[in-house]
Amino acid sequence: MLKELREKVLKANLELPKHNLVTFTWGNVSAIDREKGLVVIKPSGVEYDVMTAEDMVVVDLHTGEVVEGMKKPSSDTPTHLELYRQFTSIGGIVHTHSRHATIWAQAGEDLIAAGTTHADYFYGSIPCTRQMTPAEIEGEYELETGKVIVETFRKRNIDPTQVPAVLVNSHGPFAWGTDADNAVHNAVVLEEIGYMNLFSRQLRPNLHAMQQALLDKHYLRKHGKNAYYGQ
Amino acid sequence: MLKELREKVLKANLELPKHNLVTFTWGNVSAIDREKGLVVIKPSGVEYDVMTAEDMVVVDLHTGEVVEGMKKPSSDTPTHLELYRQFTSIGGIVHTHSRHATIWAQAGEDLIAAGTTHADYFYGSIPCTRQMTPAEIEGEYELETGKVIVETFRKRNIDPTQVPAVLVNSHGPFAWGTDADNAVHNAVVLEEIGYMNLFSRQLRPNLHAMQQALLDKHYLRKHGKNAYYGQ
Amino acid sequence: MLKELREKVLKANLELPKHNLVTFTWGNVSAIDREKGLVVIKPSGVEYDVMTAEDMVVVDLHTGEVVEGMKKPSSDTPTHLELYRQFTSIGGIVHTHSRHATIWAQAGEDLIAAGTTHADYFYGSIPCTRQMTPAEIEGEYELETGKVIVETFRKRNIDPTQVPAVLVNSHGPFAWGTDADNAVHNAVVLEEIGYMNLFSRQLRPNLHAMQQALLDKHYLRKHGKNAYYGQ
Amino acid sequence: MLKELREKVLKANLELPKHNLVTFTWGNVSAIDREKGLVVIKPSGVEYDVMTAEDMVVVDLHTGEVVEGMKKPSSDTPTHLELYRQFTSIGGIVHTHSRHATIWAQAGEDLIAAGTTHADYFYGSIPCTRQMTPAEIEGEYELETGKVIVETFRKRNIDPTQVPAVLVNSHGPFAWGTDADNAVHNAVVLEEIGYMNLFSRQLRPNLHAMQQALLDKHYLRKHGKNAYYGQ
Repeated sequence: MLKELREKVLKANLELPKHNLVTFTWGNVSAIDREKGLVVIKPSGVEYDVMTAEDMVVVDLHTGEVVEGMKKPSSDTPTHLELYRQFTSIGGIVHTHSRHATIWAQAGEDLIAAGTTHADYFYGSIPCTRQMTPAEIEGEYELETGKVIVETFRKRNIDPTQVPAVLVNSHGPFAWGTDADNAVHNAVVLEEIGYMNLFSRQLRPNLHAMQQALLDKHYLRKHGKNAYYGQ
Repeated sequence: MLKELREKVLKANLELPKHNLVTFTWGNVSAIDREKGLVVIKPSGVEYDVMTAEDMVVVDLHTGEVVEGMKKPSSDTPTHLELYRQFTSIGGIVHTHSRHATIWAQAGEDLIAAGTTHADYFYGSIPCTRQMTPAEIEGEYELETGKVIVETFRKRNIDPTQVPAVLVNSHGPFAWGTDADNAVHNAVVLEEIGYMNLFSRQLRPNLHAMQQALLDKHYLRKHGKNAYYGQ
Repeated sequence: MLKELREKVLKANLELPKHNLVTFTWGNVSAIDREKGLVVIKPSGVEYDVMTAEDMVVVDLHTGEVVEGMKKPSSDTPTHLELYRQFTSIGGIVHTHSRHATIWAQAGEDLIAAGTTHADYFYGSIPCTRQMTPAEIEGEYELETGKVIVETFRKRNIDPTQVPAVLVNSHGPFAWGTDADNAVHNAVVLEEIGYMNLFSRQLRPNLHAMQQALLDKHYLRKHGKNAYYGQ
Repeated sequence: MLKELREKVLKANLELPKHNLVTFTWGNVSAIDREKGLVVIKPSGVEYDVMTAEDMVVVDLHTGEVVEGMKKPSSDTPTHLELYRQFTSIGGIVHTHSRHATIWAQAGEDLIAAGTTHADYFYGSIPCTRQMTPAEIEGEYELETGKVIVETFRKRNIDPTQVPAVLVNSHGPFAWGTDADNAVHNAVVLEEIGYMNLFSRQLRPNLHAMQQALLDKHYLRKHGKNAYYGQ
């Protein structure tokens, strides 16, 4: 079942150590088959160098139940599912503790659009969620993590297609995209921006966002109907 | 004698350069056979790329005397032995001068639990010891180093099983675990946290510990009888 | 057409990932044949590991039209062309988003000559351009980027042969040189200086430029008619 | 002539890129044959990957004249020679622009002994020289660089055997040792300390030197007649 998608999810998971986004097993990638309402996700706590496509777990988008697979899915599965249910345009999700994105998450701060590297991929600030309440943490924690991400985007009126990443307060980043590969691509860019903004702000403590015109120009030359970047 | 344990200790020592935790010979791993009261430890000042299982030295837990091995044991052996004697739940110990843990040790500061990466492995702050007195330094220095670590955990009422690492003031980190491998694993996480907290605090100079509820959630979902992470 | 130059431009482009100056496709190198008035440049958005010399695009220096090549040239081509037209001594140009040069560009600050590493290659501060106006951004943006670079050098009376790099405000660096290889060489040095100055200024917040005599000595022992460095 | 020493100097030079201490050709190692009064040094501006033992240049300790070799010696040769003439206990010298040592040199600050990593190799602060005068720079610059290093050690009463490195103001580090290999070893440690102190001071802006007793203990357990580290 979903053989091709499991191969893709495996491959995307293996991109994480290649791009230095994970230590040990601290990361997971999933992808969705929207027609079937099924999500393929990495198993919980399995080492990257022994992982196979058969280890990928197929879960039901709505119930979260395992439909196929011998292993337990990632403990973060309920977060992924909530994002797929609420952000209906996305096809793949990545969660990591990549160093520089996590540094910002631990500080509880948004990543503002300080340069064109950011603008080429994210159309505005990458938000950091509020801290979760004890009730949320002690309840269905991983599901609530998804809910607080969705709340952040809704309250601040951010389009998850245009800003395909979030920092979960005191935790780390989630990134997403049109498919698993694209989600990993965005996770790499997020980490790069996390690094650069850290030190741009060291140089300029009151670092503020770039001009709106420049943000528009760079985002729109790569996205949307008037894009002219690439072949 | 203890052939299997020597192989394991060798292998764990070789993990240190692989994880970029050591420069030259600046690190050592040991493990204990509790039944026999014997500790296996890396020899002093031997290069990692020529080290063999035969080079590992077997010492007596109580007397510190070499029971088997042609080489001198690590000069830090008395520190390891004191930790094994006082922290009876641990099975392996690592000492390194890994960069970011050492940065905090040189600054004489605890590593607070600022995010879930920390909470997944350490149930609260990783303490930094007090400075040693001239009498301690000029006496049985390496043994006294062990004693000041134990004092730190006792006085601050920290359980070494739940917080398997320490920063020795003006020196560097020790980490431990259920065996040599687990100790190295914890040393890697410690270094990762040292890196991230450094820069989270740069962003937020008054960085404080995460919510207790979130610390509980993450530590306890991986440790203890209600753990649900992994296979 | 221009077979040899296309090989050289391909090779110079492949140096970028080798020197860790680019992530994904975020960089481009070009070179000029001054006699023919033709520029060879990397295609837009093509992965480095599949790129061939045939993929390089030949464009007209004055009209910007593609003279040979099946692919679209880099979207930054108009910036390159403007620099070749105005800085008539240069033979190759590199654009990257290399981390530490970009950090300074995002902060909107010049890179001052703080040490002899800088002085060996750049005869004075590497300037950061002013922010572009909305009209410039919404007009022929990439051409205007070239114009604001040229304006910076003219207004501040900087010789582009002696200071072969610039930081484009809120964007990233351009570097150039006698040919494509030399431009990449300068881009590597620029990144190195960006790294070191960042932290020298952390240590000394009022970091100022080195003595003029030392800048003269180091620049002139490697450049000009009295140079005595190298074979 | 000096075939064996040339092989050693070549090998030590090749250690520099392996330890990430150099970019391009920015570094040089030399060694001395004290009996013959001859110094072997890397040629000026030759790439590491094509360098051979035959390229090493033999120069006279006192006159600086080339005694054997087809290539020009490193432009820093007069600095090396002055150090060999004045610091008669040393057998090898390394000059690099390694990033973190250079960061401190550019800031014009000493590297204080903030932890035992430092104390294991350097018995006190690693000094930064004063700025050179225009007359020194415009005169026999490379020789004067050596003289200002010697002046720094003499005025501050530092023993170059016990503190085998210096930071040249606005320039970068020189390190030395009993032979070429040992000098490279010290250059690696210097870089490591440069990295760690940078960030220990970020955490603790008034970072001060470690206790004298601890400095004594660590330095003396590895050096001198009561050393007990290693085999």
